[in-house]
This record gives sequence, C-alpha cells and structure tokens, in this order.
Amino acid sequence: MTAEVVPLPRKRPESARSGDSDPPSLDPMLSLTAGGMNSVNSIILDRMQSEIPLIPALAGHLISGGGKRLRPMLTLAGAELVGYQGTRHHRLAAAVEFIHTATLLHDDVVDGSDLRRGKAAANIIFGNPATVLVGDFLFSGAFELMVEDGSLKVLKILSSASSIIAEGEVDQLTAQRQIETSEERYLAIIGAKTAALFAAASRISAVVAECDDRQEQALDDYGRNLGVAFQLVDDAIDYNSSAAEMGKTRGDDFREGKMTLPVILAYARGDEAERAFWKSAIGGHCTSDDDLGEAISLIEKHDTVAATRDRARHFASRAIEAISIFPDSKARRAMAEAAEFAVARFY
Amino acid sequence: MTAEVVPLPRKRPESARSGDSDPPSLDPMLSLTAGGMNSVNSIILDRMQSEIPLIPALAGHLISGGGKRLRPMLTLAGAELVGYQGTRHHRLAAAVEFIHTATLLHDDVVDGSDLRRGKAAANIIFGNPATVLVGDFLFSGAFELMVEDGSLKVLKILSSASSIIAEGEVDQLTAQRQIETSEERYLAIIGAKTAALFAAASRISAVVAECDDRQEQALDDYGRNLGVAFQLVDDAIDYNSSAAEMGKTRGDDFREGKMTLPVILAYARGDEAERAFWKSAIGGHCTSDDDLGEAISLIEKHDTVAATRDRARHFASRAIEAISIFPDSKARRAMAEAAEFAVARFY
Repeated sequence: MTAEVVPLPRKRPESARSGDSDPPSLDPMLSLTAGGMNSVNSIILDRMQSEIPLIPALAGHLISGGGKRLRPMLTLAGAELVGYQGTRHHRLAAAVEFIHTATLLHDDVVDGSDLRRGKAAANIIFGNPATVLVGDFLFSGAFELMVEDGSLKVLKILSSASSIIAEGEVDQLTAQRQIETSEERYLAIIGAKTAALFAAASRISAVVAECDDRQEQALDDYGRNLGVAFQLVDDAIDYNSSAAEMGKTRGDDFREGKMTLPVILAYARGDEAERAFWKSAIGGHCTSDDDLGEAISLIEKHDTVAATRDRARHFASRAIEAISIFPDSKARRAMAEAAEFAVARFY
Repeated sequence: MTAEVVPLPRKRPESARSGDSDPPSLDPMLSLTAGGMNSVNSIILDRMQSEIPLIPALAGHLISGGGKRLRPMLTLAGAELVGYQGTRHHRLAAAVEFIHTATLLHDDVVDGSDLRRGKAAANIIFGNPATVLVGDFLFSGAFELMVEDGSLKVLKILSSASSIIAEGEVDQLTAQRQIETSEERYLAIIGAKTAALFAAASRISAVVAECDDRQEQALDDYGRNLGVAFQLVDDAIDYNSSAAEMGKTRGDDFREGKMTLPVILAYARGDEAERAFWKSAIGGHCTSDDDLGEAISLIEKHDTVAATRDRARHFASRAIEAISIFPDSKARRAMAEAAEFAVARFY
C-alpha cells in the first residue's frame, strides 16, 4: 500500500452551490431550520426540568454547552425538503437530541478523560454517578416524547438506532488499544455509534410527512452517509496539526488508544519500525506529548489525515446523491452544503 | 419520639392462606408463573445476544446471576389474576426485566463498591465503561420489545416509569451522606427508584388484558405497595444482625452513607451523643467495622429494624387490599402471600 496524496479542494465545487466562492458552510442549514430550532430548543429546555435540581443543572451543562444540535437539525431540514407542514417533528427532533445527549454523558464516563475537547466534562464537575443517571433520565425522556407523538414507526426507528449505538460503543471499547483493528471494523463502529442516529434523525422527517418508502430511504441514506463523513473528519481533526488553532485539543484519541482511520492507515502504510511504534503507542505504552508528536509526524508522512478526508468526501458525495431524487430547493441546497461542510471544516 | 417495640409475627396470618403453618413464601407465586417464566427467560436470553461478544458476556453475568425476576413475575401473576389468555405479556415481562437489569448495571457503576451484596459486581469484572454501555443496550432492547408489542399505552407506562426511576436514583444520590433526610423524602425516593417499576410491571398485565381502569389501578396499587414493602425490608436487612447468616453482606448502605429508614428513625430517636455519631458516620467520617457495630447497636437499641418492618407490613397490607377487588383465586392468593413474604423474609 502506498500513501496517496490527493490534493483537497479548499473551496466547495461551484456546481453544487450558488456560485459564490466562500468555503462550504453550515449557515444555509442553520437559517433553513432557525425557526423550527427555536421550538425544538423550548421543548428541550422544558423537558430537561425536574424537581431534582441536579438533573437540570447537569443536563444544562451539556445542553447549553454550545453544541451545534446537528441531529435535530437534520430532522427539521428533512421536513423542509419534503414540504411537511406540521409541527410533530419538533418534539421528535428534541427526542433525537436527548438520545444524543444521553450518549454523550455516558461517553464522558466511558472515556474517563478529565477534559472533553478542551472543556471540563460533565463527569468531572458532577461525578460519574450523576452523569450516568442523568443520561438515563434524558434517554427515558426521549422515549416519553416519542410516545406522546404516538408513531410506532418512529419509535421503532429510534429504539433500533439506540440499540445499534450502544452496540457500536461497546464494539469501539473492544477495539480500543487493538492495533490490528481493520478499516472495515472501524467503519462498522462509526456506522453504528454515529451514523445510525444521523440516519434515524433524517429518516423520521419522512415518516411524519408520510413520504413513500423511496423518499424515506433517501433521507436515511443522506443522514447515514453524512454521519460517517462527520465522524471521519472528527477523527482526522484529532491528528490535524492545525486543529489546535481552531479551538480543538488534539491527541485525545491517541492517548485513549482509540483506533481511528488516520492511525489504521498510518499503521498499514508504515515500515517495521513505525509499526512497532504504533503497537506500543496504541497499546498504551507511549502516550506522552513527544509520542503524540511522533504519531502526528508519521500521520503527516503518510498523509493519512488527507486520506481520511478523502474517504469522508466519498461519503459526503453519497449523502448529496441520496437526496438528488428530490427536486432542487433551498432545503436540498442547504443539506448538500452541510455535507460539503462536514468534509471541509477545520482546514 | 419513643421507640415502639412491636412484636413481629414469624408466621403468616392463617386467614390469608391455606391453613398450613409454614412461613409466607414466594413458592405459590413461583409455581403460578413457572410456565410463563420459561417463555420470558427464552426471550431474555434471545434478546441479550449481539455480534459483539462482550454484550452477552456482561449481560449474562447479571441476568444468569440468580436474581428472582420478581418484576416480570408480577406481570405474569397479574395476567393470571385477570384471566388473560394471550402471550403478549411474555415479551413485555422481558422488557420489564431488561429495564431492571439496565438500572442494576448502572447502579453498580454509581455505587462503585467492589462487591454488590457479597458478589463481584459487573463493573469490577468488566469495568465501568462496558457496564454503562451494556446497560444502555439492554434499556434500548426493552423499548424494542415494547415497540414490537405495539401498545402505546404500555410504552407510555414503561417510559414514564423509566424516567421516574432515573429521577429517584438522582434524588437518592443527592440525599447520600445527608443525615437530615426526612422519612417523607426517603419514601419518595424508594417510591421512584423501586416501586415505580413494580407498579408498571403489574399494571401492564391489566393493559394487555384490556381490563377497565379500576382493575388497572388496582394492579398498579398492588405493585407499587409491594415495591415499597420490598425496598423497606431490603433496607432493614442491611442492618439486621442475623442477615449475614442468610447469605447477605451487611453494612453496604452504611458505608456508602445511604439514608435509609433504619438510620432515619435511629437518628430521630437518638440522644445528642448518638446523633453526633450518626452525623459523622453518614457524613463519611466513621465507616469502619467498629463503627458499623456501633450503628447496629444503636439501631437495635431503638428497634428501628423492627419499626422499618412495621412500615413494610403496612404497605404489604395495602398491596393485598388493592387486589381484593378481584375474586378469590389461586393467583390472588399467591400474590397476597408474595406480599407477606416481602415483609417476613430473612427473619
């Protein structure tokens, strides 16, 4: 296997957008869904309340922590795309965000790191016990919201996604510190732990709008491919030498021995000495800042951040292709640009 | 406040049972539900499988660990009581047990003790991360089972119960090491963390059988009161001087600073010196075996294990009274004896 150096466009292709030369942005998606997101945010705020003060305090730490709320945004954008006129999707989008928040809280406990992306994690401030339990509270709250909506089809989609997420997380845990993890297994893991909820969030918009199976599947495909693209780029950013400037810390995955694509490819492309380094680094025996520096230099040598982004571009293209069955619209353009943004962010 | 020494009957009252002089037993309930429990157990075994081997390994550790499966048994007994002829309740009883198992796994992480009731807890063998995630998997699996059944009413009952359980667990966490916790708050906590699922497990049998609201409420009341009685006695056993002989370890609650009724009453009935001891013990400053010995001797002095069991007897009576609206039957007698057993066990 050789290192493929593929030049990456720093601008979005003109064809897909309105002709300006700005880099792809999430802004069209944000403005498309701004009105609906206000309703979703009210529901989220309302439903994270409890007579037990620790619950809103802890949930609020994460929920008000400035996340992009990308997943509920997918539900809202999908509804725009298919011309849905009702408001049922607001409650369901809030349910999606609750499921996501619950998994993040549990991830904080699972990862056990003092910092999560440069900020104090919930478990550090509130402790593991409360973090686990408030995650459970939000997860239950998600199902209560779905039950209030009353669609068994939506309940099936989101309960199945939740189950797949948990399986993916356990699989990721099993692969941790296992240098021989294959690209296929890595893709299966991110498909489960990340893309399943993106797919479900997107698909349920077609369900409330009573779209046909083909449209429902198209929205599922859009979300799933977008989710894989997002996760690939997240995993690339953890080794990106310019990421620090973008307000992200680097090296969390490295120190935790998480097997992500930049490492999988660098290991595959490395010589014997490099492979020995990776074995001991991922095995947990070389995790200093110097070791991280060495890891980044090997990743740069073999261009595996770029290769990871190339894979992401492939999935983003598939996401855009999936929604090509719908007529051109502001919603479709915003969703396509969101997929390009997923690949291009943090250049 | 004075210590009330109420002699406790070591035998079940003749009136409620078949006239023999054995102590109350769970056996009639076990034999009533034996056939159905085989189906429930198959569903549980089937649905805890996954391609990720760690999932069935970890879930199996707890699920095969010899629990009584009391909650699904309540669903089955309720169905017998109301003459339900179908099999829908088997799947729902499995869902109930999955919710319970998920909360137990998360409790293992929350309590963080090396041993859980004398046995190695899942988190000790498999680690906190996997324990949290497999809990999530089982919780999602519970909702998948409910969705397959297709009753929104059941989904509402069990999602609401799950939410209340999580709130109760957070409330218990907040009350930990707080010596001033009142009996009212303690009852609210155990009503949420324990009795809500007992109530829901029992109530859903009436839902699948399409009983009227009065019967549904009666089964809810039975389960709820039984749940409170069970938890009270569990909490009493933790300070019961003969409990060790029954295969239970003692003092876990004491060392963790959990505020349970035997302590709340001993603190209320204690003199100034005793109160000072309790403050520092529950505050986490006196947790040695000698301190536990002192705690037990104060609890014996004020007879608060007996007083706790008296409260339990009150709730057990209410449970029995709740199902008195149904005609006498083998099921009703078994359920009544289960309530007496809840109070009398471990004498």
